[in-house]
Amino acid sequence: MPYVNIKITRENATPDQKAALIRGVTDLLAEVLNKDPATTFIVIDEVAFEDWGVGGLPVDEYRRQRQSAAKTTQS
Amino acid sequence: MPYVNIKITRENATPDQKAALIRGVTDLLAEVLNKDPATTFIVIDEVAFEDWGVGGLPVDEYRRQRQSAAKTTQS
Amino acid sequence: MPYVNIKITRENATPDQKAALIRGVTDLLAEVLNKDPATTFIVIDEVAFEDWGVGGLPVDEYRRQRQSAAKTTQS
Amino acid sequence: MPYVNIKITRENATPDQKAALIRGVTDLLAEVLNKDPATTFIVIDEVAFEDWGVGGLPVDEYRRQRQSAAKTTQS
Amino acid sequence: MPYVNIKITRENATPDQKAALIRGVTDLLAEVLNKDPATTFIVIDEVAFEDWGVGGLPVDEYRRQRQSAAKTTQS
Amino acid sequence: MPYVNIKITRENATPDQKAALIRGVTDLLAEVLNKDPATTFIVIDEVAFEDWGVGGLPVDEYRRQRQSAAKTTQS
Repeated sequence: MPYVNIKITRENATPDQKAALIRGVTDLLAEVLNKDPATTFIVIDEVAFEDWGVGGLPVDEYRRQRQSAAKTTQS
Repeated sequence: MPYVNIKITRENATPDQKAALIRGVTDLLAEVLNKDPATTFIVIDEVAFEDWGVGGLPVDEYRRQRQSAAKTTQS
Repeated sequence: MPYVNIKITRENATPDQKAALIRGVTDLLAEVLNKDPATTFIVIDEVAFEDWGVGGLPVDEYRRQRQSAAKTTQS
Repeated sequence: MPYVNIKITRENATPDQKAALIRGVTDLLAEVLNKDPATTFIVIDEVAFEDWGVGGLPVDEYRRQRQSAAKTTQS
Repeated sequence: MPYVNIKITRENATPDQKAALIRGVTDLLAEVLNKDPATTFIVIDEVAFEDWGVGGLPVDEYRRQRQSAAKTTQS
Repeated sequence: MPYVNIKITRENATPDQKAALIRGVTDLLAEVLNKDPATTFIVIDEVAFEDWGVGGLPVDEYRRQRQSAAKTTQS
């Protein structure tokens, strides 16, 4: 009876994409560990950019700085 | 100092029902393990149907299929 | 299909006490929100004292300081 | 930069099976949502039977009762 | 590659305050445990008052009762 | 009344280092959001290498491959 929590940044994942995640993770647990899909729970959390940090920065600022750095390197 | 996280599908739980969960879980921890209510935290998360999967399907699709199956069986 | 995670400090909770928590929380969700026990999951985590902080201190140090303070006040 | 937490009952999952879960979930997030594997984290928690409840019972008791019920039905 | 989840009651934390939390926790993990900021994830969850319980009560009711008690004591 | 969960790979963090994390995160929440340390909970989870995945691999395999790659690049 697995419980799986998937946290992703909120950027327009569609219901179909979420359904594909639910199906895929459930199938994987059945294949690898023989877990019963009927008692496999998946919970997806979408997290706003300002609430997710990486590299010491909120995600949007983090991506901006990496793009700047990439441009500088290229020029 | 227990910490309890309750995840439920979002389907119109009222503030009074949430207060009843908070009260009930806090009392239970005091009775069973003698935990101090003053340092017992309860956090409730309501999860949209498209973000909760069971049986390899989002909850709403899962319930639809079960209802169909039940009707077929009855007839 | 609720999912509940209970975190408590590790201090000799018995299997019977854990079973009482599982029973109690499951019954509560059935009573308050009409949730089906068959799809109610409870996961209990016991956390070592050095891994739980409150008041800016690990739990054991926190309790020691409060006991000292209490003795000082009483005398 | 997804974060995925997989909770399963502790019953002898091997390192190879865990590696297969890590690989499978990471690939799924890359395929469905174009997530970069380099910033996809997976954390697996194995939970003892006495710490996992379903149907109002610890898992081992729950399974015992279902097996009993199945035998009764068959005879 | 640490993962940190911060849950706070929802009461107008600004993007700048959240960025300060992200920066501060990331720096702390680098200083204390030499963790690489590039693979340190922070996720902040803001929780509505009705969804957070302490002392057996939702947070807003809890605060109201404590303020009442304080006034009674003072007078 | 914040609740903070810190997950790190298990590699000999000392009780003093954990106490420094607890102190640091609690102080940070007091400074940035004026949160009361008395009701700030920190829970630290140490996760075995085989249970933490990044880049589609368990952490130990992931580090081995990166070291190999680094050597190849340098030579």
